[in-house]
Amino acid sequence: MAQEHIIKSYDEELQRLDNALTQMGGIAESQLGSAIEAVIKRDSDVATEVIEGDVRVDNLEREIESQVMRLLALRQPMARDLRQSIAALKIASDLERICDYAANVAKRSIALNQAPPVRPVFALPRMARLAQALIKDVLDAYIARDADKALIVWARDEELDEMYSGLFRELLTYMMEDARNITASTHLLFMAKNIERIGDHATNIAETVYFLVHGSPLNQARPKGDRSSLAFIRPEDGRDRAPAEDEAS
Amino acid sequence: MAQEHIIKSYDEELQRLDNALTQMGGIAESQLGSAIEAVIKRDSDVATEVIEGDVRVDNLEREIESQVMRLLALRQPMARDLRQSIAALKIASDLERICDYAANVAKRSIALNQAPPVRPVFALPRMARLAQALIKDVLDAYIARDADKALIVWARDEELDEMYSGLFRELLTYMMEDARNITASTHLLFMAKNIERIGDHATNIAETVYFLVHGSPLNQARPKGDRSSLAFIRPEDGRDRAPAEDEAS
Repeated sequence: MAQEHIIKSYDEELQRLDNALTQMGGIAESQLGSAIEAVIKRDSDVATEVIEGDVRVDNLEREIESQVMRLLALRQPMARDLRQSIAALKIASDLERICDYAANVAKRSIALNQAPPVRPVFALPRMARLAQALIKDVLDAYIARDADKALIVWARDEELDEMYSGLFRELLTYMMEDARNITASTHLLFMAKNIERIGDHATNIAETVYFLVHGSPLNQARPKGDRSSLAFIRPEDGRDRAPAEDEAS
Repeated sequence: MAQEHIIKSYDEELQRLDNALTQMGGIAESQLGSAIEAVIKRDSDVATEVIEGDVRVDNLEREIESQVMRLLALRQPMARDLRQSIAALKIASDLERICDYAANVAKRSIALNQAPPVRPVFALPRMARLAQALIKDVLDAYIARDADKALIVWARDEELDEMYSGLFRELLTYMMEDARNITASTHLLFMAKNIERIGDHATNIAETVYFLVHGSPLNQARPKGDRSSLAFIRPEDGRDRAPAEDEAS
């Protein structure tokens, strides 16, 4: 497997790409972590740092893009090296989107701070921890060129989908209890959706790793745990769960 | 500008790429159009067709990807031709995402059909028409390699952001009027968000066209009309607009 390239600096260039992607992955994890910290501690300063930090990731993505373009133009890689270049482009794009979602979580936390805390906010850190683990594991799988490890991430995203679906129902019920919960719950819905989307981008990266290693795309439909798009919850449905509060609205 | 390639079939390959992208763009427009038709006519059959039609686009994206990989491996393009190959990859990925969003609009329309029609649904077609125009115009700009035309799309996305922000506020107020509106309005919020995201992907394509034509990235911050992430609406705010219904909840 380990064929060495004749020109040593070519390997160095590929190594540089991997380093840049690892760096982006680290930033993505930490941006998401800080965004959730901002939510839980109701700290708008931390949120602002996350929002402002997003530009670093945009710059890194551009850097990776021009590295890849240079590599393609000067080295004209073939077979696996060519897939490697394209994989780097795709992974950089997914990581950039992941950071956008983290920044949007941070932005919405500032809106949440304009009102008293709401109960369902405590579901977010659990979702975020899983999303962080998916990002970390899929980047490890990429660095190790380990398609099996990538497939584990790909399958585990279902857990995140399920958490999101559960929270979707909970938040809708919570909105129905009291109209004053509606704005905060709507932001929480979008924050949860952002984290769920982060998981989708981790699975995209997993598919890219699979393609990089095997040279053919993963032709399997992913198990989907998110059925919220089809969900319809009525105020009466919530009554079993929280009858007293329900009447209070 | 029009340098002919020595090997004629190379031009034919580039032409094939453009054709595939034009085809994808046409499908994206029509999927979005049908999704909105499904919403307005409350037609779950049309919605199902849109959802099932999404696989065509996934296949087209893969085809474009393997065309580009073959082109890079066999032709080893340089300069503008290299940018062309990378641009095709990126545009295909944006169009695939646009179709995913259209399919999600269709999916949520099925959930909406489980309850009586809600008023704010009529804001969606206007947003969708603008989004369709952005897709069409940016693909035209791509085919004409017209960076100025692409920049017009890039700037016009702000209108879509503003429509979305307005609808966000309207839907929140509508939810506060009556708890029975909450589930439908939540789906509508996500549907509107999907259309707003379609606009973002049109601007991504516009940036790709700019890069393709000029060889350098567009280094300008895009005007943002969507301030909904920071919005906080209270039940009292809505009372001025619809006092009678407000008390009814």
